[in-house]
Amino acid sequence: MSAPPAVALLSGGMDSLVAAALVRAEGNRLITLAVDYGQRHRAELSAARDLSEWLEAEEHVVVGVDLRAIGGSALTDEIDVPHAGGGDEIPVTYVPARNTVLLSLALGLAEARGATSIVIGANRIDYSGYPDCRPAFLDAFGKLAEVATKVGVEGHAPRILAPILELSKAEIVARGVALGVPFERSVSCYAATAEGRACGRCDACRLRRDGFVAAGVVDPTVYA
Amino acid sequence: MSAPPAVALLSGGMDSLVAAALVRAEGNRLITLAVDYGQRHRAELSAARDLSEWLEAEEHVVVGVDLRAIGGSALTDEIDVPHAGGGDEIPVTYVPARNTVLLSLALGLAEARGATSIVIGANRIDYSGYPDCRPAFLDAFGKLAEVATKVGVEGHAPRILAPILELSKAEIVARGVALGVPFERSVSCYAATAEGRACGRCDACRLRRDGFVAAGVVDPTVYA
Repeated sequence: MSAPPAVALLSGGMDSLVAAALVRAEGNRLITLAVDYGQRHRAELSAARDLSEWLEAEEHVVVGVDLRAIGGSALTDEIDVPHAGGGDEIPVTYVPARNTVLLSLALGLAEARGATSIVIGANRIDYSGYPDCRPAFLDAFGKLAEVATKVGVEGHAPRILAPILELSKAEIVARGVALGVPFERSVSCYAATAEGRACGRCDACRLRRDGFVAAGVVDPTVYA
Repeated sequence: MSAPPAVALLSGGMDSLVAAALVRAEGNRLITLAVDYGQRHRAELSAARDLSEWLEAEEHVVVGVDLRAIGGSALTDEIDVPHAGGGDEIPVTYVPARNTVLLSLALGLAEARGATSIVIGANRIDYSGYPDCRPAFLDAFGKLAEVATKVGVEGHAPRILAPILELSKAEIVARGVALGVPFERSVSCYAATAEGRACGRCDACRLRRDGFVAAGVVDPTVYA
């Protein structure tokens, strides 16, 4: 495999893991990128490093960016993470411009390493409340990449791949199972313990558990 | 002045200072944003904080993002900063996707603070070699902002203001002089000393000095 690698954003959660695994299964080499943005659920960063090894990534890059200085989210501020709610409103766990920042960093890394694609585990079904998980956002970022970088100007902008964008949580679980993905090593919980044990009550835990139930797969999540 | 503020990216150099001063002079309140991306010219960050006070910004936010983990530029890596050269090639001081990252962070801050515009000191004449200093890039980022954020989805995306985009360095100097901008407190040099003294030999120093000469203004820069 001497083709250029793909940069895969890896949060430590299950969505980005399955997204990266799907692109890996197509024969792509991976460079994984975890962004330490001051998230309260620090166990995700440890999980990302572990999952990068499982994915046989040729490099795992961690970029620190202190979004706490910006604030505005329950995920970085001292705001209580809400328990299972729902509805169509944008949740308080939304981090302002988070995916824009994540993709920007992935774009810089892709350019520096000569990667020709960027993988993001955005999903518009379960995260319909997040504006930056929609196809229109990803399309606009793709257009930006064409004019933002050296390689883009030369006609070789990295492509933005969002392989689980249209999948339900149950479908994500099923695809992951088919690839032998170690879900038990991923951490999705917004309020996980330092050891990565999930609270079982937050929105992320609820979505994840519902996905395993709907897929008819035993939930391997380690709960606190 | 109760209108929403503008988020002004402030590098500590003269371009972003004049850009912010021009928007301030139109009656806008400012929130200034300096991004600590591991740049070798650390004196710029001190200058940014000082210039934020001169601009009477209501808040100065510093966001750390470690672009050194990405690499690929003489400004963050241990690559020699080149002396006055020129030509149309993209210079080694280009930081991959830097302005994309800077604008992403400004977008997050704008959303978190309810700011309705973002000010960037991009300039396409002096920095023709940088892809992310061109109008096409700024337009694409504006489109992205419309779909990337809560406020954008609601039809109130922050506007991207680049008031010095089409100005020559001499024109930037002239506008700054007209506003009483303290150029001597700004640091443009790629290899400034810790005290902010300029090397006088790098591309940034050359462009800056040429600007003062062309504007017929005594260069107030403090050289090492």
